[in-house]
Amino acid sequence: MIFSSKLIEDAVQEFAKLPGIGKKTALRMVLHLLKTDKGEVDGFTEAVARMRHEIRFCSHCHNISDKEVCDICANPGRNRGQLCVVESIRDVIAIESTQQYGGLYHVLGGILSPLDGIGPEQLNIGTLNSRVRETGVGELIMALSPTIEGDTTVYYIARQVADLPVNITTIARGIAFGGELEYADEMTLARSIARRLPIENYVSGVKSN
Amino acid sequence: MIFSSKLIEDAVQEFAKLPGIGKKTALRMVLHLLKTDKGEVDGFTEAVARMRHEIRFCSHCHNISDKEVCDICANPGRNRGQLCVVESIRDVIAIESTQQYGGLYHVLGGILSPLDGIGPEQLNIGTLNSRVRETGVGELIMALSPTIEGDTTVYYIARQVADLPVNITTIARGIAFGGELEYADEMTLARSIARRLPIENYVSGVKSN
Repeated sequence: MIFSSKLIEDAVQEFAKLPGIGKKTALRMVLHLLKTDKGEVDGFTEAVARMRHEIRFCSHCHNISDKEVCDICANPGRNRGQLCVVESIRDVIAIESTQQYGGLYHVLGGILSPLDGIGPEQLNIGTLNSRVRETGVGELIMALSPTIEGDTTVYYIARQVADLPVNITTIARGIAFGGELEYADEMTLARSIARRLPIENYVSGVKSN
Repeated sequence: MIFSSKLIEDAVQEFAKLPGIGKKTALRMVLHLLKTDKGEVDGFTEAVARMRHEIRFCSHCHNISDKEVCDICANPGRNRGQLCVVESIRDVIAIESTQQYGGLYHVLGGILSPLDGIGPEQLNIGTLNSRVRETGVGELIMALSPTIEGDTTVYYIARQVADLPVNITTIARGIAFGGELEYADEMTLARSIARRLPIENYVSGVKSN
């Protein structure tokens, strides 16, 4: 694309660096901002700059936070006996949005993947280990990707805390709500039959609003 | 979605105001920027802020420009006898990207649409009229939307300059390259048959690289 303005060209190039944004979409955004009130555009750029510069990571769970300790860890109403171990911040947001989980989190920052050079030192596994030891957590809920790397990470963490009386669970795998049986992969379907539930669990498993 | 950080929430909300961006995509962009180097994020916000604050509109053709007169109008190599009349900046970028047009432009900033309260005063039609009179343009190429509003605008402009020896043309309508005949609407197909071209024009109509 040929632009008659260097300012537009620079802005389009910056937008096109964002994930899933091509040049045409970037141009559409830039032309939208061009029509937008200057004050609102300032609001946009300031929110982005502040987010990047002022964001911190919770010293307990490594979740994003505006303070030293995140709102979830600081909330006295949450169950301190449960830790949900997740890969990334995005997973925390997804689980929090269900409003069904009342425990704390621990964000690993990834999963073990020796081929990509990600070992236990690159992840927040050391702090998880000391956290479990110091705070006497009763249950570790593993909410990691159902891949070989995810299973390896679960196994590695389980070994690290094997000497403690901590219960290790993983989130249930099965057919998603609204999912069609015929499109489910064999492994998921096989597991969901092997781990079938009595009908009363099926109903009581989801809190009524 | 529930975020544990106000900073993230604000940034997501700002991104979600952009056209075609929902909350999930906005979150994806914010988390991407969170992983990006601070200097690069500053580059992004500065490019956007500079674009909005420093952009100007060419005093001749109303195209976006970094200076008083845009690069196209200032280019001595361009044919000053042709003006391509377009609705928006986006059309200038699209036509420039073909690298086939060597004349100048005039950006109307919209088309006549009385129902939306857009009359000749809201558009750059007055400046077009005086520009044609002052510079002795030989041809006005109307590259407007093929809608009733577009045709009305073409007709209105033609009436304004009816006393001048200026040639008024419109861009060709027809079946797009790669377009399937069976999916073309009746009007386009009927027009493309009525305005059929001798085979030599068909080949010479596109410059070879």
